[in-house]
Amino acid sequence: MNYQFARRLDAAPESFLDQLFAISRDPKIISFAGGLPMTSLIDVAGIRDAAAAVFAEEGETALQYTTTDGYLPLREFIAERYRSRLGLPATADEIRITNGSQQCLDLIAKLFVDPCTVVGMERPGYLGAIEAFSYYQPRFKTVPVTEEGPDIDAFHTLCQEDNLAFFYGIPNFQNPSGMSYTETRRKECAECCRETNTIFYEDDAFGELAFDGRPRIPVKAFAPECGVMSGSFSKTVSPGMRIGWIYAPAQVIEKFDAVRQAADLHPNALSQAVMYRYLTTHDYEGHLERVRRVYQKNCNQMCDLLDDLLPDVIHTTPEGGMFMLATMPEGKDSMALFHACLKECVAVLPGVPFYAEGGGYDTFRLNFSTANETEIEEGMARLKRAYCLCGKK
Amino acid sequence: MNYQFARRLDAAPESFLDQLFAISRDPKIISFAGGLPMTSLIDVAGIRDAAAAVFAEEGETALQYTTTDGYLPLREFIAERYRSRLGLPATADEIRITNGSQQCLDLIAKLFVDPCTVVGMERPGYLGAIEAFSYYQPRFKTVPVTEEGPDIDAFHTLCQEDNLAFFYGIPNFQNPSGMSYTETRRKECAECCRETNTIFYEDDAFGELAFDGRPRIPVKAFAPECGVMSGSFSKTVSPGMRIGWIYAPAQVIEKFDAVRQAADLHPNALSQAVMYRYLTTHDYEGHLERVRRVYQKNCNQMCDLLDDLLPDVIHTTPEGGMFMLATMPEGKDSMALFHACLKECVAVLPGVPFYAEGGGYDTFRLNFSTANETEIEEGMARLKRAYCLCGKK
Repeated sequence: MNYQFARRLDAAPESFLDQLFAISRDPKIISFAGGLPMTSLIDVAGIRDAAAAVFAEEGETALQYTTTDGYLPLREFIAERYRSRLGLPATADEIRITNGSQQCLDLIAKLFVDPCTVVGMERPGYLGAIEAFSYYQPRFKTVPVTEEGPDIDAFHTLCQEDNLAFFYGIPNFQNPSGMSYTETRRKECAECCRETNTIFYEDDAFGELAFDGRPRIPVKAFAPECGVMSGSFSKTVSPGMRIGWIYAPAQVIEKFDAVRQAADLHPNALSQAVMYRYLTTHDYEGHLERVRRVYQKNCNQMCDLLDDLLPDVIHTTPEGGMFMLATMPEGKDSMALFHACLKECVAVLPGVPFYAEGGGYDTFRLNFSTANETEIEEGMARLKRAYCLCGKK
Repeated sequence: MNYQFARRLDAAPESFLDQLFAISRDPKIISFAGGLPMTSLIDVAGIRDAAAAVFAEEGETALQYTTTDGYLPLREFIAERYRSRLGLPATADEIRITNGSQQCLDLIAKLFVDPCTVVGMERPGYLGAIEAFSYYQPRFKTVPVTEEGPDIDAFHTLCQEDNLAFFYGIPNFQNPSGMSYTETRRKECAECCRETNTIFYEDDAFGELAFDGRPRIPVKAFAPECGVMSGSFSKTVSPGMRIGWIYAPAQVIEKFDAVRQAADLHPNALSQAVMYRYLTTHDYEGHLERVRRVYQKNCNQMCDLLDDLLPDVIHTTPEGGMFMLATMPEGKDSMALFHACLKECVAVLPGVPFYAEGGGYDTFRLNFSTANETEIEEGMARLKRAYCLCGKK
C-alpha cells in the first residue's frame, strides 16, 4: 500500500537522536555524543522509597486518571523554587507538568507556529528543538551566540521580523555549547522582547547544574509577560520518569491546557506523585550538590585533556550543564571525525544538526555528564587517535 | 501583551473533557459523565509489588533515558497477545508504546492530516479523537453507525474521497455508543479500504472488556496493510501510568518514531517496566475477568433502570466496554438535561461533542464503569428527577 503522509514530514530534518541512543547503549563505545545524566548519580534507593510511600498512602489516586494541568503539590513545589531561588513571582497556576521539557518544545510550537512563520534560534541551537519545531513548518532564523549571549544587534534585527512566533534560547549552559548569557545580555534581550512584543522561550534544563550552585537570573525576570520558561527533572533526578514543566503567563497556559489535553490527556500520575514525594522527603539540595561536583570535575578533566591532546581545537569552557562545543581548524570536517571516532570506539556529536540555517561543519559537541574519570581519560585518547587519522575535508 | 496564537487553535472545539474531570472529582455528584475505570478494581497491591521488583532488579535502567520505540519486552508481550488472542501476525517491530492511546490520536493525525484533508469518523464518534484531530485542521466527514457498524453505503462513498487521510473508528464497544460492528461489517469495511487504499485507524481501547470475554476479530485482520490499531492498558490496568500503544505497518512505524521523538522523546521508562512486570507476574486474565463481571453487572443494572424510570428514552445495549448512548424523544435537549442533572447532583454527558458535523442534541452518554451499585441506583433516580424537570427545548 502507498501511504500518503502529511506534507509537514517533508520539513523535518533526519533525526540524529535515535542514532545517539543506540550508540549510548553499545558497551564497546565510550560515548561523549549523548546527553544522559550519569547513571550512578540517580538516587535509585531514594526514588524507590518515595514510590513505596506513594503506593502505601495514595496508590489509587496515583494509578487513576488525573487532571491535565498536573499534580498540584508538584506545581507548588516548582513555583516555590522559582520564588525562593530566582526571585520570580511564580504561582502553581502558571505552571504545567509535561513529559520532560521536550514536550514543551512540541506544544509551544503547536501553540504559536503557523507554516512559514519565523522561529528565532541560537546559532548553534538545540537540535531537539529544531526537530520538534520543524513539524510546524517554520522558517528558522538564527542569531550567533558567543560567551556573552546572542549577538545583540542580530537579536534586535530578528525581533523586528513581522512574523516572528518566538525566540527560543538556552541562557544557562547551553546545549550544545555550554555557553551562558551574561546578566547584561539577559537584560538587553528582555528589553528588546518587551519593545517588540516578542516571546522569549527560555529553556532552562540546566540552570540547576551551575557548578558554583549560584542561580542565574532568567530573561523572564526582566520581561515577565514575554517569558515562557521550561524546566525539567530529567537532568537532576531521573529522565526515565519524564517530568518537565512549562512556566508561562496565564493567557498562554489556558491555550496550553487545550493542546496538551489533545496530545495525551495528562501527565503520568504515578511519576508525578513519586517525584514530588522524592523531592520533599529526600535531601534534594544535597543531591544537586553531588551532581554538580561530579560534572564540574568531569568538565575540568575534559577541558584539560582537550588542551593537552588537541591543542589546535578550540573549545568552550562551561560553568555548568553537561556539554561543551569544540571547533576544529578550518578544513576539518566533523562528519569525517564522527566516523573515524566510531572506528576507534569513541563517539562525539557533529555540530551540523545544531545549525538550523546550515553550517557548523567544523564543530562537534562533547558531553561530560555520562562517562566517568577513567572513561574520559581513555575516550579522549581514542578521540586524539581518530582526530589524527581523520584527513582534511 | 498580545499573544499571537497559531491559526490551528481556531479549528479546535471547546473542550469538554476538563469539565468532566472536574465533575468527576466533586464528591457530591454521582457522575455517569466521565470515563474512569472503577478505582476499586485497580490492583494497587499488585502494581506496588511489580514496582518494588523493578526498583530492586532494574532501577537504574527504569529511571534513565530509554529508546523512542518503547520497552522491548512490553512490545513483545503486546505482539504475542495480538497473535494468540486475535490471530494477528503482530511482531514487536510493528508496535510502539505511547502515553495512553490518546497520544496515538495526536501522532497519527500529525502523520497523515494536512489542513483540509478529510478525516472520516463515526457518527457519533469519540470526542477525544475529534479534539486531537482538530488541531491538524481536517474536514470531518462522518458515517452513521448502527448496531451493525458503519452504514456501508456511506462508508463506501467516503472511501472514494480524493483527499481522505484515514477513517477512524472503534469497532468494539464504541465510545460513546457502546455499539460494536458485526463480523460481516468488519469484512465489508476492510474490503472497501483495500480497494480504495484507505487507512482504517482502529481504536481498540475496549476490546478486552467484552463481557463474554470473547475476542472480536479486528478490521485489520481482513486488511493488514490498511490497518493502524491502537490499544491501551488504561481501561484494564491503570490510566495513571499512561501506557497505550500503536500497532501499524512498518512504513508507518518508521515515520511514527520520528514524530514521537519530536513530541516527547520516549515513553515513561518506569511505567513501562512496572506495567510489564505486573502483566507477567500477576494473574492478568483473572484481573480482566473480575473487571468484565463488574462492568457487565453495572451495565445490566443501568439498562434495567433506564427502561423502568425513563421508558421513553431509547438506549443502546452494549456487550462490553464502559459506555452506552441514550436518545431522548424529539424536542428534548441534552444540554438542558445536563444542567438539570447538575442541580440534582448527577452528571451525564450531552451527545453534541461526539458529532463532528453537528447534531446529536437529543442524545447523551452514560458511563457504567465508575459508579458502584448503590450509586447507580441513586444516580438514576436523580436522573429521572432531572429528566422530568427539564422542559422541552
